[in-house]
Amino acid sequence: MALAHPDRPTPRLTAAAAPLTHELEVLDEFGATRRIAVPAERALTVFVDKRELVTLMTLGAAPELLVLGYLRNQRLVDSVHDIESITVDWDVNAAAVNTRAGIERFDEKTAKRVVTTGCGQGTVFGDLMGELDSIRLPAADEPSARISQSALYGLLNAMRVQESTYKSAGSVHGCALFKQDELLMFVEDVGRHNAIDTIAGWMWLNDVTGADKIFYTTGRLTSEMVIKSAQMGVPIIVSRSGITQMGHQLAVQLGLALFGRAMNKHFICYSGFARFDSQPEPPR
Amino acid sequence: MALAHPDRPTPRLTAAAAPLTHELEVLDEFGATRRIAVPAERALTVFVDKRELVTLMTLGAAPELLVLGYLRNQRLVDSVHDIESITVDWDVNAAAVNTRAGIERFDEKTAKRVVTTGCGQGTVFGDLMGELDSIRLPAADEPSARISQSALYGLLNAMRVQESTYKSAGSVHGCALFKQDELLMFVEDVGRHNAIDTIAGWMWLNDVTGADKIFYTTGRLTSEMVIKSAQMGVPIIVSRSGITQMGHQLAVQLGLALFGRAMNKHFICYSGFARFDSQPEPPR
Repeated sequence: MALAHPDRPTPRLTAAAAPLTHELEVLDEFGATRRIAVPAERALTVFVDKRELVTLMTLGAAPELLVLGYLRNQRLVDSVHDIESITVDWDVNAAAVNTRAGIERFDEKTAKRVVTTGCGQGTVFGDLMGELDSIRLPAADEPSARISQSALYGLLNAMRVQESTYKSAGSVHGCALFKQDELLMFVEDVGRHNAIDTIAGWMWLNDVTGADKIFYTTGRLTSEMVIKSAQMGVPIIVSRSGITQMGHQLAVQLGLALFGRAMNKHFICYSGFARFDSQPEPPR
Repeated sequence: MALAHPDRPTPRLTAAAAPLTHELEVLDEFGATRRIAVPAERALTVFVDKRELVTLMTLGAAPELLVLGYLRNQRLVDSVHDIESITVDWDVNAAAVNTRAGIERFDEKTAKRVVTTGCGQGTVFGDLMGELDSIRLPAADEPSARISQSALYGLLNAMRVQESTYKSAGSVHGCALFKQDELLMFVEDVGRHNAIDTIAGWMWLNDVTGADKIFYTTGRLTSEMVIKSAQMGVPIIVSRSGITQMGHQLAVQLGLALFGRAMNKHFICYSGFARFDSQPEPPR
């Protein structure tokens, strides 16, 4: 591996992507048996310096980036350079994280559980809400932190043509990172939090900042999606789904633009109107 | 409160349901502002005998039953009769649980975290997987633990006509308990795990057993939905959504019947064919 900064090496990662779909024999309403593809789902137990941290249930598309993003978004590790390696081994369903110098206050950081909405009951260690005051997103008049209606349509079209496990097997959430309507990274997982964490891991590894980026998610705009986006400095989120009250409230507080029900040429802008260049369609 | 069994009193519960929707002003693709309803989402921090356990993000439809079901499904309390009261106060976003005699091995029971799929990263304390061997569902030839295609259509029709926050505001998951096509209990929440936990709380409180019941969920059939259903003794699950590989694998192992993509007169039976009386439609 060629290192750009030998003094600030990035983690060594395995590349343990696993098969993403699995075939089943099913019975339909016509009494016919047929074979269909469904998404894989596997347990991945994360060990940090040989201590068990958590078990994530994942599709397995990019497990190393998932673990990296999880450590980042849970605020367990301060810098990606503090991580020496992540080794995923599907034979034992484990991800071994080695840090360069250990994690300070590990027990304290993992002590508090906030079970977030999701479609489930997500775990966020530590007091993320308390961190919100320190978040600064770029100003709404910064051109790279705005989006026009035509760029939004370009983004939605890029998602429409993207090959995906969702198209072949359903039942997964997709998440993508855009710079205007240019797709930079796309990943799917059985849980949408895993998907966004994987994007976070990719950004961390490649030193990609969020201020001029846009998140796309197939999942809902709940409080923790807004918080995760804001923590990564991304000021705009686009979702195929809808929103909850707290997702809206936090976005208003933080100055994020939220677009939901976004597909083809339809969308609703829920917040951050100041970041949006509306180019209205003539009503039909 | 009239007690059927004065020696085995059920918990005293507040009835702190909160408003389920909230109005927002949004901007659409035609450049028009309009008002829409979105689901509420609020934090509920659960204290057990004054010790903080977890913060759940919830719609707030039935918070006491949610807490009750959470304690049950996390295996933190053995019997509903061990709980003296649950007091929910939205002014402080807290649920205070008082037990009659404390919880044995509280720290040990809450030490292990499994972050499950969901759309998020759910928390399941303890080693649920290890419990699977002890689960016994009713035999597949037991009439009350089977379903016919016409009863399935009746169930789907009952869900179709059910009034819901989903219809008015979207972005919530619904969960229901049926006895054949008779709807016994319906609840919605921002997270589908909260919805199923609320049903579990209702069953626990009212001493309703699962062997002759059917779960309906709008969410996907992931591993933990199957596990939660099996733990409550319910042998059949019907979902509007799809399935993941591990959800399927566990259902086969446990002998559950899973129906997905179920809406109107369409469905796929993924597992437990032996519990299903197929009455095929003529192909169109």
